[in-house]
Amino acid sequence: MKEFECRKKERLRDIEKLLERYLPKEEGYQKTVLEAMNYSVRAGGKRLRPMLMQETFWLLGGRGELVEPFMAALEMIHTYSLVHDDLPAMDNDEYRRGRKTTHAVYGEGMAILAGDGLLNLAFETAVGAFRLARGQEEYERTARALEVLARKAGVQGMIGGQTADVEAEGSAAGEMTMERLLFIHENKTAALLQASMLVGAILAGADEGTCGQVGECARLIGLAFQIQDDILDETGSLEELGKPIGSDRKNAKQTYVTLKGLQEAEAQVESLSRQAMEIIESFEGDTGFLRNLIESLIHRRK
Amino acid sequence: MKEFECRKKERLRDIEKLLERYLPKEEGYQKTVLEAMNYSVRAGGKRLRPMLMQETFWLLGGRGELVEPFMAALEMIHTYSLVHDDLPAMDNDEYRRGRKTTHAVYGEGMAILAGDGLLNLAFETAVGAFRLARGQEEYERTARALEVLARKAGVQGMIGGQTADVEAEGSAAGEMTMERLLFIHENKTAALLQASMLVGAILAGADEGTCGQVGECARLIGLAFQIQDDILDETGSLEELGKPIGSDRKNAKQTYVTLKGLQEAEAQVESLSRQAMEIIESFEGDTGFLRNLIESLIHRRK
Repeated sequence: MKEFECRKKERLRDIEKLLERYLPKEEGYQKTVLEAMNYSVRAGGKRLRPMLMQETFWLLGGRGELVEPFMAALEMIHTYSLVHDDLPAMDNDEYRRGRKTTHAVYGEGMAILAGDGLLNLAFETAVGAFRLARGQEEYERTARALEVLARKAGVQGMIGGQTADVEAEGSAAGEMTMERLLFIHENKTAALLQASMLVGAILAGADEGTCGQVGECARLIGLAFQIQDDILDETGSLEELGKPIGSDRKNAKQTYVTLKGLQEAEAQVESLSRQAMEIIESFEGDTGFLRNLIESLIHRRK
Repeated sequence: MKEFECRKKERLRDIEKLLERYLPKEEGYQKTVLEAMNYSVRAGGKRLRPMLMQETFWLLGGRGELVEPFMAALEMIHTYSLVHDDLPAMDNDEYRRGRKTTHAVYGEGMAILAGDGLLNLAFETAVGAFRLARGQEEYERTARALEVLARKAGVQGMIGGQTADVEAEGSAAGEMTMERLLFIHENKTAALLQASMLVGAILAGADEGTCGQVGECARLIGLAFQIQDDILDETGSLEELGKPIGSDRKNAKQTYVTLKGLQEAEAQVESLSRQAMEIIESFEGDTGFLRNLIESLIHRRK
């Protein structure tokens, strides 16, 4: 495990350096929004999505820098969603992981613009991959990867999940069905994880069947991750989560735990995790790091 | 002029039909955000940007449907910027063109999501153009057009202008320089007009020199348009603009008129307009409609 932790720190450091290359210089009349965007990205975090993308890319035979703009783009998309999610009109959070949220520092208007700026910059960045593509094949992979990235981030993915989640706030227990909860988890959370792994696979030149398996694997990981999130919310604390206990409960939102109970939730996490691992193990090559990464993600204590 | 007005109505009708093809079906757990997005787009309007894009495309020899996803995408980008601009934390407008704004109908949270959804859908839509591209050349044009669209919409374009504009609110007269005002006009307004015409030119296969001229032409049009906006704000009324007189003045924002006076502003509009026309007239082909369109845009009374 110690070797994994070392390698993970190394990877994280490399990804931070990579991200910095794509962040805008803070100059010009629009300097403030650039500062706010960088503040948002530099909030730190596990950089899980770019890490998953690159590991999947490498595992499936991908080499070179074509994946890099997409890694940065995905982290920007993830970041903008947090910035907007924290806004007063949405979740209204002053803090995220013990650090002041973007609107708390820059004001609401600038935080809205920073989020817009990051989403837009994500696409500017991903589109820049065409300049790295060599030959018709890489060009086509880049176009397909862009397509998947855009779809999973939008109303058929993350934004769709966000919408359903926002509307679920305060709903009477009878209105939140398991079907609706799974929709939220799959779209609000799993969609970007799917984008991470699918883009890595597509850019590596994986065939359709492999891409389908990768997408399914990411969906399972996303679900397991979110159910674990529900479990932690039930059992966690301010120190661990960086926000008050039962934050979801405060907003009267149903979770997997309130719908099915803690035991069933824990059993589901195990089952989904095992299914995801089976898919990873079916791929040739050294799956060690990827398996440890997914494992550490699902079974995190915070 | 009557022929122009007829043709313009025709074109507008065709563009409305085109847009409808790209709007999402209002179904699923995320239905509300889809309704809000469609409400925003269906607010009507002149559809100037897609119209400019298509006319430029045709004028420079473009044929076929490759331009269509980009037309829809640009109108979505323009629309999302208005939705976010109207938010309480930004311009705080209950009405736009005499109609309730998106947040006034759906609430602030859903309006934020609707704006995000539209920006994202714009890129999903534009990326879809790759499926229409035939051959390496069209593929490359699509990638370049995407690059320009993304850059002009972002922090180096529209969002950059929005940021500087938001920060100019309430500034003492001494802080708003002509240089800063021109930055705002060029980015907040002209950038998307440049995107309109440049994308049309790129997709039509125009060479670098022609694209440069087209971009310059659009910049001049955008500036003239915005200075005219400042003039109308000074002399207009609630009925014509759909919002109270001197709305910018109320927020103590400097305009071209307050900085240079009404006469100089009017002279500038004429000069910029003439320069833009010269560029259009330098292109071969029937420039009649395009010239009338630009003319009607710049010299509008509302």
